[in-house]
Amino acid sequence: MLKDLLATRANPDVPSALSGLFTQDADPSAISFAAGSPNESLFPVAAVQRAFNTAIAKQGAHLFQYQNPQGNPALRAKLAARIGKWGQVTTTAEHVVLTVGGQQAIELVAKALLNPGDEVAVEVPTYVGALAALDLYQPTYYGVGLQSDGIDLDVLETTLKRHPGIKLLYTVPDFHNPTGITMSVAKREQLVALANRYDFIILEDSPYRDLGYEQTPLPAIKSFDTEGRVVFVSSLSKILMPALRTGWLVADDTLLAAIMKVRLASDLEATGVTHAAIDAYLTTNDLDAHVDVLKDHYRVQCAAMVAALGKYFPDEATFTTPAGGFFDWVTLPKDIDTGALLREQISPTAHVSYVPGTNFYPNRDVHNSLRLCFSGLTPTVIDAGIHRLGDQVKAAVHEAKPVV
Amino acid sequence: MLKDLLATRANPDVPSALSGLFTQDADPSAISFAAGSPNESLFPVAAVQRAFNTAIAKQGAHLFQYQNPQGNPALRAKLAARIGKWGQVTTTAEHVVLTVGGQQAIELVAKALLNPGDEVAVEVPTYVGALAALDLYQPTYYGVGLQSDGIDLDVLETTLKRHPGIKLLYTVPDFHNPTGITMSVAKREQLVALANRYDFIILEDSPYRDLGYEQTPLPAIKSFDTEGRVVFVSSLSKILMPALRTGWLVADDTLLAAIMKVRLASDLEATGVTHAAIDAYLTTNDLDAHVDVLKDHYRVQCAAMVAALGKYFPDEATFTTPAGGFFDWVTLPKDIDTGALLREQISPTAHVSYVPGTNFYPNRDVHNSLRLCFSGLTPTVIDAGIHRLGDQVKAAVHEAKPVV
Repeated sequence: MLKDLLATRANPDVPSALSGLFTQDADPSAISFAAGSPNESLFPVAAVQRAFNTAIAKQGAHLFQYQNPQGNPALRAKLAARIGKWGQVTTTAEHVVLTVGGQQAIELVAKALLNPGDEVAVEVPTYVGALAALDLYQPTYYGVGLQSDGIDLDVLETTLKRHPGIKLLYTVPDFHNPTGITMSVAKREQLVALANRYDFIILEDSPYRDLGYEQTPLPAIKSFDTEGRVVFVSSLSKILMPALRTGWLVADDTLLAAIMKVRLASDLEATGVTHAAIDAYLTTNDLDAHVDVLKDHYRVQCAAMVAALGKYFPDEATFTTPAGGFFDWVTLPKDIDTGALLREQISPTAHVSYVPGTNFYPNRDVHNSLRLCFSGLTPTVIDAGIHRLGDQVKAAVHEAKPVV
Repeated sequence: MLKDLLATRANPDVPSALSGLFTQDADPSAISFAAGSPNESLFPVAAVQRAFNTAIAKQGAHLFQYQNPQGNPALRAKLAARIGKWGQVTTTAEHVVLTVGGQQAIELVAKALLNPGDEVAVEVPTYVGALAALDLYQPTYYGVGLQSDGIDLDVLETTLKRHPGIKLLYTVPDFHNPTGITMSVAKREQLVALANRYDFIILEDSPYRDLGYEQTPLPAIKSFDTEGRVVFVSSLSKILMPALRTGWLVADDTLLAAIMKVRLASDLEATGVTHAAIDAYLTTNDLDAHVDVLKDHYRVQCAAMVAALGKYFPDEATFTTPAGGFFDWVTLPKDIDTGALLREQISPTAHVSYVPGTNFYPNRDVHNSLRLCFSGLTPTVIDAGIHRLGDQVKAAVHEAKPVV
């Protein structure tokens, strides 16, 4: 059997964290709150097309040759300056690596750090794509809960004392995927102190940091790094366009060298043509002004989602009120399995979808929550979809409730 | 020490197979036969620029959204048809995966198959980038020598009998990197029979198959596959442009599913914008006609290299006469270490460079060969460079020779 020749990480009997997340629904009235895609009506297509032409006209054939394995130096310099301005991170182009989306950045860090069985701490719930990337290197997970101001540092420290071998903490500090929670500045500083004390690496994944509806971005965890222990990851997928496949990371010395070693072996380099086009776009366009346009849209969509949840969901449901990003997180009574509910009831009858919360837990052991994404839908559609979803959730909650 | 937190695969004390391959030489007269880059003067820049504009005009914003994790379906269909026409492989778009260069395709196969210590057979010498990708998953290597018609199947079978756990064979059947050797059709068929008998997977890496100077491409090993055991890998880097970062693979059923599972977790998908541009390019341009232009150039460069080697190298050196591809392989007397010679003598005094052969052996245990790439240089420069190199090699051979 060819199956017996596969690596443990590719075992087909273990579903990937990323597979089956999005159900296909052929019904024309179907509304999906599942995929976390940016709103494509906001993409600056004409400006990016001009940027491709500018880059090609400027560099000609050489643009299409093998390039720098860390990525276009001019674009790296611009990204270094950007995280300096908006995240208080003092860095330079030499410490930036361009990756195939933020996903590859996470995977490269996991690849550079993890032997099978190595211990990793993650927020629970946490980003499903990070779990998929970490899963490739077969870690032992320790989940640490979230509070309204981010990861529970007391639980983290208890966990570190009990498991001093933990070598990596993965965190999404800004408008967390899936909960929308943002880590306080105080906790960012304390987290770095813990990393120094307990000798672990922090993987700071921050693709949504620019998309705060009401505030300017907070200082990155990386800005408090004193020992080169923090790898900062972000992406242009959410604030520019995903199909440019351009994520980036900031790392120092030992970690940077290790990441570049595994990067070269993985794909040599990312797509130089799109890097040059992005660099040209950033030279003649104001990305911050574009981000302001995005925030104005997503703020309205988020408000519509929160209002609809208040209107149509039963009192037994709790939900977050995000201050940025794409997601709302809903928690239902403990006895409701949102995966089974979606599959058996909501998808076939109401034609609405979401991502069941189970996917965001490394041990897939919590079943009563769900993630809703509002980024791609109009307020009217959001209201209609949450109405349909709320009716189903109400019925499930009342059915599940014991009659007194 | 942060170094202690790294994975074994990222150990900084073990040099990467891909690091330090290309020496930097600031001398204005320096000639490099090292990097295996295609000749950028042959890139169809204007046609590809038009293709980007066509793709963007046609699809607009949607082109820049998250796309299909396997890659653009129209481009996959064209590549499936191409390998059908030129490699006798019967396949469809559903079995093609677009990757970030051929390098990522190799890495994904290694990732899908290898647990630490798993046994892998490779040709010796073999492509250094494949060794780097395989190294990430810490295999045990068995080297199998090459004959003028490809891998030595008798040695391979003896090795398989002795090590029945071998689960993967990596081979470059067409204009092999680094030796330029091509595997005969008979051996391709026999290799598949061996894979069926001894239960292993064949990773067929064929980026140079289109670049045969005198002949049309041979049937791919994959064309003889009866059990879905062969993964075929190729790339547009050598026949179109490297910075488009578009490689591709063909796999079936079990292996395809395993590869897609690790692919999603690695980077979600490759660069959709460039896929669409390549598809548009292939729709309005004749890639075969472009490949004919490339072959006319590389044929002349290769002939210049072979002639110069005959003229300037000592009789003690043997070299291959490639019928396609980018590389010539030179073997010197056993007591000459081409790495030390390059570092200490040739690079500082003659300002000529090559890749020392040691890099192409998984155990880095053979030191008297070197790889020369002729793709980027004019015949005049090739003659001048090989002249300088030959003088150095002659001196080294005569110095090394015991006085009788």
